[in-house]
Amino acid sequence: MKFGLFQSVQLPEPGAQAKYYREALDQVLLAEQLGFNSAWFTEHHFSRHGIVSATTSVLTYLAGVTKTIRLGTAVAVLPFHNPIKLAEDAATVDLLSNGRLDFGVGRGYQWSEFHKLNIPMEQASRRFEEAMDVIIKSWTASEPFTHRGEFWSFDDMTVHPRPVQQPHPPVWVAAASPASMERAARHHWNLLIGQGETFSQVAAQAEKFRTLVGEAGDTPGPDRIVAARAMYTAPTQAQARRDTEAPFMWFKQTGQEVAAPPDRRPELLPEDFREHRRRFAGGGADYEAMLGNVTLFGTPGLVAERIEGLRQAGVENLIFFINFGGLENRKVMNSLELFARDVMPQFRE
Amino acid sequence: MKFGLFQSVQLPEPGAQAKYYREALDQVLLAEQLGFNSAWFTEHHFSRHGIVSATTSVLTYLAGVTKTIRLGTAVAVLPFHNPIKLAEDAATVDLLSNGRLDFGVGRGYQWSEFHKLNIPMEQASRRFEEAMDVIIKSWTASEPFTHRGEFWSFDDMTVHPRPVQQPHPPVWVAAASPASMERAARHHWNLLIGQGETFSQVAAQAEKFRTLVGEAGDTPGPDRIVAARAMYTAPTQAQARRDTEAPFMWFKQTGQEVAAPPDRRPELLPEDFREHRRRFAGGGADYEAMLGNVTLFGTPGLVAERIEGLRQAGVENLIFFINFGGLENRKVMNSLELFARDVMPQFRE
Repeated sequence: MKFGLFQSVQLPEPGAQAKYYREALDQVLLAEQLGFNSAWFTEHHFSRHGIVSATTSVLTYLAGVTKTIRLGTAVAVLPFHNPIKLAEDAATVDLLSNGRLDFGVGRGYQWSEFHKLNIPMEQASRRFEEAMDVIIKSWTASEPFTHRGEFWSFDDMTVHPRPVQQPHPPVWVAAASPASMERAARHHWNLLIGQGETFSQVAAQAEKFRTLVGEAGDTPGPDRIVAARAMYTAPTQAQARRDTEAPFMWFKQTGQEVAAPPDRRPELLPEDFREHRRRFAGGGADYEAMLGNVTLFGTPGLVAERIEGLRQAGVENLIFFINFGGLENRKVMNSLELFARDVMPQFRE
Repeated sequence: MKFGLFQSVQLPEPGAQAKYYREALDQVLLAEQLGFNSAWFTEHHFSRHGIVSATTSVLTYLAGVTKTIRLGTAVAVLPFHNPIKLAEDAATVDLLSNGRLDFGVGRGYQWSEFHKLNIPMEQASRRFEEAMDVIIKSWTASEPFTHRGEFWSFDDMTVHPRPVQQPHPPVWVAAASPASMERAARHHWNLLIGQGETFSQVAAQAEKFRTLVGEAGDTPGPDRIVAARAMYTAPTQAQARRDTEAPFMWFKQTGQEVAAPPDRRPELLPEDFREHRRRFAGGGADYEAMLGNVTLFGTPGLVAERIEGLRQAGVENLIFFINFGGLENRKVMNSLELFARDVMPQFRE
């Protein structure tokens, strides 16, 4: 199996952005040393839920300070980008990392981001399709190309630099609906399963995608699927719970704040995570349900058991969301080290 | 005085993009060791004349592998960018470099880039003004802001990350007209003088800008102006000429190719620089004229003499265009070392 990071930077303490970036980057450096295979960064805008907005820039930084770890967008939200500029940005990551880019893409889901950028959310799918068309052409066209689309027009295009990986970096699509998965399979793209799906949804999506890959004429191997999971491991179950509960629920709830339009928005959390922790009264039913069905929180033994279940479902490339708001860096690092010592060896061929 | 690089990557040999990027980045690492103060990267698109399109990504890469050298855009071409995205990208450079960004901006001048991106060139100035307004607000607004402009609309904006330098990174404007210089001075921005201006134009612009800075209520010190110059130094004048002539004229002529619309375009150069060199019959009058009036090509003594002239004109921050198409990396490195040894010490306080 392969293990990586599904990395995000939140802002649980206002004003401490430099500390949180530094910690998230240090976690990647440690992960590379520990034998993790990849580090994927999420793209978010305009809220404390996620403050990495220039994802390809952060990956280019990491291209300079890492040697072997693969670098992924998870995901680049295509409706928010000029597709030519994104093709240039992503190719630059691939070039400066000597071919280590995994290009994860999605159409976006946060109401607030679309609203603030003044992009109608109902255009998301069409913008996604047009952008992918332009990006793949930018990377592969052997002659200058012209594009006339619904949202973009370009003339006589020759995009520099070109990616190093040929014909282009692997494309990973955050897709859950049958139609989106079918489109991904038809284009010979790969599937990125989100961290919010339950274990049984992960298994069902993986099964469905394998069928679609076969129908598209490809071999449905385990290299075609990556799945994100929140992961935290500690010596005891009680400690794993104590450490993750308030930070993870803060992350989930700030996510709900930005995902929904104002009339369907939950009560806002306090601006500072420390105030949230003071008021916090336990994860409740949501945390419990996720503990059994979604997250990898627990002792190395429990985490390994859940990973074995995923492996049996044909999911052999996992990327871990480890850095959720307010969880101390030292604890994140300890969890990574414990995972590398007590879990990873069981799954290495 | 301060010396830096005005760095560009061209593609004189098709297919060798990785080599040219590597060399340009290595030149920056050497420059930092030699005591150069800054490295500014140009932004170009869609032609061999310049293949750094993701300038802020390249600067973020350098943020990771350098320690002290300042990192500049020279320039970010504002009409080509979503201003929110550029504010995010540039702030990320500033954050990951710990406050080393110099934000150079311009409105663009290449006909081909505007045409291929389908952006009317006559909108360039208005797009520049609107973008600067949005970018500065993105970096400094203490409350969410809304923008309704001619080209962009944004709602309820809070941009992450924030730059480290307060209130924001220094802004350098590529301005030559009195109106553009006046606008820069009025906003308390700084002046970036291009490498194409003659020595007497540089002196006149510096003088004019000092006056405008005073009229805007600021102190017109030498820290408000940076000027770009093509520079190459070698032990003899003959060698400096032999080494620069074909590569520099290749650079100038490919620049003319992309700057002009098709009906005013010169005869295209061969695709491969080596073919250009074979056919090349001397720089001619253009090269001669630039040698006396524009470029810093020559022995350390001659280069120092010209720099002294610039210093006396109040220009005390020079950034050198050193890496022109087809000039071998070894020669560029030698020139930097010779400059650092024989010229730089004369101008260090």
